[in-house]
Order: sequence, then C-alpha cells, then structure tokens
Amino acid sequence: MQIRDEFQSINDYFAPKIIGEVNDAYIKIAKIKGHSHPWHYHKHEDKMLYILEGELMLEIENEESSLLSAGDLYIVKKGMNHRLSSENESKILLIESKTVKHLSNRITNITRSIVEQYYD
Amino acid sequence: MQIRDEFQSINDYFAPKIIGEVNDAYIKIAKIKGHSHPWHYHKHEDKMLYILEGELMLEIENEESSLLSAGDLYIVKKGMNHRLSSENESKILLIESKTVKHLSNRITNITRSIVEQYYD
Repeated sequence: MQIRDEFQSINDYFAPKIIGEVNDAYIKIAKIKGHSHPWHYHKHEDKMLYILEGELMLEIENEESSLLSAGDLYIVKKGMNHRLSSENESKILLIESKTVKHLSNRITNITRSIVEQYYD
Repeated sequence: MQIRDEFQSINDYFAPKIIGEVNDAYIKIAKIKGHSHPWHYHKHEDKMLYILEGELMLEIENEESSLLSAGDLYIVKKGMNHRLSSENESKILLIESKTVKHLSNRITNITRSIVEQYYD
C-alpha cells in the first residue's frame, strides 16, 4: 500500500488510522495539527513515531522538547509523559502495541477507540 | 534520530542495522542492492517493510511480484515465502520481532546474527 493514499480518508487531526498489523503491534498513521493532544503516558508500552511530512513538536516531561521533521524517528518509551503538537500539518507513522489505549484512556475531543481507528 | 544519518555506517547490502526497540520488536534499516537475498520465511513472525528510497522488488511465492517504491508499506505475514532484490540501491525501514532469525537461520554470505545487527 502507498502511504499517501492511506491519508486521503483521514479528515480529523490526531485521529489515528490503523493500516496494518505486525505481530502484536498496530501500524498506524495520523495527521497532526494544533495543540489538542493532552499530556499522557503509557505505563507498559513503547511507541514509535516516524515523521513522514512536516514538523512535529514532541514534548517529554522533564526533558528538552524536540522539533522533529521528515525522516526523524523517535521511540517514546513506556512511562514517558508526553504530548505532540504541530503548528502546520504534519504526517506521522506510528507503531503501537495492540493493547495501547488512545491517550491512555483519557477522554477528550480527540480520543478514538481502537474500533474507531479502523477506517473503511 | 534522523534516518539518513543512521545509514551512513552501513556499508554492506542486505545487512540489517538495529536502530531501536519498541516493546518486543526491533526497528531496523537496510540497504538493498542486487539479488543475494535467498527465499525464506518466518514461521511465527510478521515483518513490516517501508520503502524510504529507491525501488524494491518483493517476490512472494505463489503471488504476483510487487515493485515497491518510496512511500510503499508492505507487511510480509508469517509463513509467506519471500525474497527481496533491487536493481539499484534501495533503502528500507523494517519492523521485526526480536525473536526473528535473519533469513530464518539460513547461512549465506549475507546472514547477520542479532549481535551483528547492532552497529557502533
């Protein structure tokens, strides 16, 4: 599958779309814009971020913030309190455990259940 | 980390380099050129391929071959007998279980143990 085609069905920012499964992990993509993403962490799971397009601000509690750009890869280790934002639109590829709850189960305007992360 | 920098220490084709760990999976990169990659399959593990640069020929037994190009993502499901080749150099990102043996333990000129996949 071609990643840019997979983005065409995504209308909302911060709404992950599952595009595949590799063993016990989901492969997801998301468009990021704005500051709606709340601070959260995953107690038991790491997450990989790979920046496909644009610039993504990654804030990690008690660490220096990173402005990631296309080609940057970052692994948010379990327990790291973090949030993502983007002034302009950025596009990312994510690898997450199937057990991960979006935003660690925090209910916000952007929270999506796993079922909602499967697009037609 | 910036993926293009990570490629600078890779001299050999088909030699995976581990660049990170996400839960029970390794994130790897590799340069592919030529036809040294033998047919093999992994009985218990899926593998994700994401094409960063160039064109990669993916052959799957009993299926049509796919010429993948930058931005294409393919999940080689467990049990799929497959091989990779590239006329010109291509660069790929891989997600594999930590339990995967390179080339499913086939010993060839290009086989690398997990230890050999950790670069300085």
